[in-house]
Amino acid sequence: MSIREMLDKHPRPTTLDREALLRCLDECVECAATCTSCADACLGEQDVQALVRSVRLNLDCADLCDTVGRIVTRQTEPDLGVIRTAIDACVTACRACAAECDRHAAHHEHCRICADVCRRCERACDDLLATMG
Amino acid sequence: MSIREMLDKHPRPTTLDREALLRCLDECVECAATCTSCADACLGEQDVQALVRSVRLNLDCADLCDTVGRIVTRQTEPDLGVIRTAIDACVTACRACAAECDRHAAHHEHCRICADVCRRCERACDDLLATMG
Amino acid sequence: MSIREMLDKHPRPTTLDREALLRCLDECVECAATCTSCADACLGEQDVQALVRSVRLNLDCADLCDTVGRIVTRQTEPDLGVIRTAIDACVTACRACAAECDRHAAHHEHCRICADVCRRCERACDDLLATMG
Amino acid sequence: MSIREMLDKHPRPTTLDREALLRCLDECVECAATCTSCADACLGEQDVQALVRSVRLNLDCADLCDTVGRIVTRQTEPDLGVIRTAIDACVTACRACAAECDRHAAHHEHCRICADVCRRCERACDDLLATMG
Repeated sequence: MSIREMLDKHPRPTTLDREALLRCLDECVECAATCTSCADACLGEQDVQALVRSVRLNLDCADLCDTVGRIVTRQTEPDLGVIRTAIDACVTACRACAAECDRHAAHHEHCRICADVCRRCERACDDLLATMG
Repeated sequence: MSIREMLDKHPRPTTLDREALLRCLDECVECAATCTSCADACLGEQDVQALVRSVRLNLDCADLCDTVGRIVTRQTEPDLGVIRTAIDACVTACRACAAECDRHAAHHEHCRICADVCRRCERACDDLLATMG
Repeated sequence: MSIREMLDKHPRPTTLDREALLRCLDECVECAATCTSCADACLGEQDVQALVRSVRLNLDCADLCDTVGRIVTRQTEPDLGVIRTAIDACVTACRACAAECDRHAAHHEHCRICADVCRRCERACDDLLATMG
Repeated sequence: MSIREMLDKHPRPTTLDREALLRCLDECVECAATCTSCADACLGEQDVQALVRSVRLNLDCADLCDTVGRIVTRQTEPDLGVIRTAIDACVTACRACAAECDRHAAHHEHCRICADVCRRCERACDDLLATMG
């Protein structure tokens, strides 16, 4: 992604840990796309009735990952409280979505992959929070 | 808004307090539009240099209000932890945005209105959280 | 909505027809919320299998209405080509979503309401396009 | 990105050209993040006054790329008219944003990179449209 290069050229980089921030940003972007795809794949399955909770949590998780990806990308005049609580919501959504997708992982490969991506995003968010003290 | 009528017809309404939920939803939708407008109005001002923090926080607040509006609208298979942490992030963003817009309220009417709308949204979010125990 | 008041205070209002713009903006915001709600209500129905196309088109329509609502809200340095093509996509999504929701209107009140809101939004978008020449 | 793997496991892949679709999707996701970053970097520059149009077009382009990325990711029950007009709006936004960022490329590296990413996204969108007949 060109985003690393973009942040290199930023006139006012934040004081956040650079590598932790880039990993969080990358994982949020990937998790948003993966959850959008998993909601849609679940919707296309014959047993969609059994996957209703998975669709719901995928939609919430996609929306939160999109928003946190944007907030973490912005470097100018950050408010640490906003960043912290937004990442916290993202962690909660990733955890809930991974737990639900795990229940369907044996029958649906897209749920297995999605659960993995959610867990990776949860970890990257947690790691960025840890560097923020 | 037709959203009240939509929720009346929902096959599985959540157990959340209905009036508190509707007010939170309405205020999130209005706050998202107002913050998008305030960021844009600040950008159009001669003294945009002095309004950089306001633009930044308006963009964060608009994104979070949009996302929380969507999450609170969804009634099917909710995860209370996701709802709670998402609303919490919204409260934090509304408070930060109102505080910054207040600083410019004497010179820019759009900042004065935006600060008021953010505070109303913060209150509606807090009220919904309070009903969730 | 406070958005009318916000646009009154804008330092650089666009040359677009003010009433047509406000109506388009209001309808986009309402249609986005209604489609988000209808997708979720369909997902909660016993016969979700029969409503898969409705969910899909509701999700597309919600995303487009959200984005067009933001673009039309912004007054500073607009690009008319971007505004025109974005509204055109919104019109197409509203029409497709209304047609599908109509098919379920007899069995699901939320689909009936959603089809009406989509048609109103389509009309408001068309009217704004007409004023743009 | 895991999105390629996700689409491999989809129960109902669309009839769209698979490689063209994946490239369009990747570029939309990257362009959305890059435009969000460029708007923020412009906002942080000393000469933000000269970059107002760039910020505005970056915000529009980020919103459209996000939405088109989501629409193109969805495979279940697509409406080709919605996909076509949405991609068309994205092409228009990428072209307008690239043209404006080009004007600042000599002074701001983030604008130079952003213009390149917008042009790549414009091309990937055009290529997908071309395969749709």
